[in-house]
Amino acid sequence: MSKSEKYAIGVDLGGTYIKFGIVTENGKIVRKSFVDTKAEGGPDVVIKQMKKGLKELLDPDKIKIEGIGIGSPGIVSKKKGTVENPPNLPGWGKVQLGHLIEKTFKLPTFVENDANAAAIGELIFGAGKNYKSFVMITLGTGVGGGIILNKKLFRGDFGAAGEIGHITIDINGPKCGCGSYGCIEAYAGNSYLIQNTKEGLKNHQDSKIVELISDDFNALTPKVISTAAELGDPFANEVIKNLGRNIGFALASVSNLLDVSTFIIGGGVAGFGKLLLDNIEMSLKQRVLKSLVPRCKVLPAKLKNEAGIKGASSLVFYSI
Amino acid sequence: MSKSEKYAIGVDLGGTYIKFGIVTENGKIVRKSFVDTKAEGGPDVVIKQMKKGLKELLDPDKIKIEGIGIGSPGIVSKKKGTVENPPNLPGWGKVQLGHLIEKTFKLPTFVENDANAAAIGELIFGAGKNYKSFVMITLGTGVGGGIILNKKLFRGDFGAAGEIGHITIDINGPKCGCGSYGCIEAYAGNSYLIQNTKEGLKNHQDSKIVELISDDFNALTPKVISTAAELGDPFANEVIKNLGRNIGFALASVSNLLDVSTFIIGGGVAGFGKLLLDNIEMSLKQRVLKSLVPRCKVLPAKLKNEAGIKGASSLVFYSI
Repeated sequence: MSKSEKYAIGVDLGGTYIKFGIVTENGKIVRKSFVDTKAEGGPDVVIKQMKKGLKELLDPDKIKIEGIGIGSPGIVSKKKGTVENPPNLPGWGKVQLGHLIEKTFKLPTFVENDANAAAIGELIFGAGKNYKSFVMITLGTGVGGGIILNKKLFRGDFGAAGEIGHITIDINGPKCGCGSYGCIEAYAGNSYLIQNTKEGLKNHQDSKIVELISDDFNALTPKVISTAAELGDPFANEVIKNLGRNIGFALASVSNLLDVSTFIIGGGVAGFGKLLLDNIEMSLKQRVLKSLVPRCKVLPAKLKNEAGIKGASSLVFYSI
Repeated sequence: MSKSEKYAIGVDLGGTYIKFGIVTENGKIVRKSFVDTKAEGGPDVVIKQMKKGLKELLDPDKIKIEGIGIGSPGIVSKKKGTVENPPNLPGWGKVQLGHLIEKTFKLPTFVENDANAAAIGELIFGAGKNYKSFVMITLGTGVGGGIILNKKLFRGDFGAAGEIGHITIDINGPKCGCGSYGCIEAYAGNSYLIQNTKEGLKNHQDSKIVELISDDFNALTPKVISTAAELGDPFANEVIKNLGRNIGFALASVSNLLDVSTFIIGGGVAGFGKLLLDNIEMSLKQRVLKSLVPRCKVLPAKLKNEAGIKGASSLVFYSI
């Protein structure tokens, strides 16, 4: 580690693991670790786990750390460092996460919504570097989003902006976990995608997917669908194409509303690769206002699994 | 006219009429006029009409005018004063409207998209005065929109932001004039609304609407639907309720994306009044993310027919 370089800690608080990284100002991770979230224990246990992980990360030698950045699910008040009702973290209500970590480690601590942190990561270190404005979509358990306007994160009235997962593409569509119907998350969120694919397989028993999971439908994951598609399975290809089409339709609404035409796609399901991205771009261009078509661009995220840690660490160095 | 007050001219460029007003800094219209747009003549004729109207308005006595503000359909580059592809103004392509008017009248001239100008009008003089952020929806031939964030108009990358009419509520819905399907404009735009109501009347021959139009379906207007609803006609009521529901669904997507929860409804169809607004608010609250529900508000526009003129005039005095 160079003496002239500056370091921050990035924390990616997930439902299963809390991931940590010591990251340079330029986005290089010099040390990484993780602990179990133990989400079922409620906020006290989770925060204990986070503190334990941070201590272990800091212990080995005394690197000067400028601050801690945390990406957390839920609605985050960046100013106060509070986290509200994070999905997948039961019992949280409203927790003063930033304050609690800052008190223990005596380091400036910044908290941001995880999808927003990923967008900031892409803006500073990744695929968004050369764009003034873009929308980042994170395809995972849910469908998250972060809106960058003029190189700044757009937070909305109360820090809840960017809920792209809850753009409706069909008011009569499938019920979404949020209570509404036909949200894009109800098509593209991991569990919905798996459920829909299982349904579809009933009429496609010859699909390579069935072979890959050895008839055990509980083994069905996005990765399996991706592998089957690469093996040329027509049904798996259709699943990915349909997913791309639906996401593209949602992005057309976003583009028409915001006059923003660059979209960056990240998260696990984005591993569907070029086939997914091409179909997103195609349906976006089919549906968006004609004047926007020439500018529309769909790009893969660059930071992959490290977006959370890098984006969170950048909260310490950059005021976005 | 008081000597200490400042005056600007507001111009509302519509497909049928160009409306003019001399307006004080506080939004009081002291003189009004209008000319035919003669849109079919193309941009040269329309600009000639605008100049004629402006000359007549300025002639009677020599009031000192600070500048001219123009609200125009189409995509407007505020900086350059150019107007691009305005719907309902055939043959325009790209026209340097601001420059042409400024050259003739030697007055600072500002051009803004008409829906944006209406939103600015509501922000400064109307229903949006007490809100930091809101979205204005103008229900007319099309469904226009203007987004106010932190007391500023949000323009997007190229000045085209706010196309709320082209938020899709059903990807398999009716074809919209923009080429897409299921845009809210394809339900709530005047001609679509009239067309759908005509269709519906086939099964509701007992509706008061049929009586009011004396069986002449060409006489069907939003005003007639409104009158029938006020007379207690169940079908007319259902039309307005459905319209409100669909608009509310679109606004839920907007609210989830932007974390903006105040909506101001203007334009002719907004004359459907409380029944329309209540149904917009109800369906918005049904579909929006739970955390946003308590803040959601749907308000009627205050400036009515004068929003265009007042909003345009305010471009001269206020940098929004």
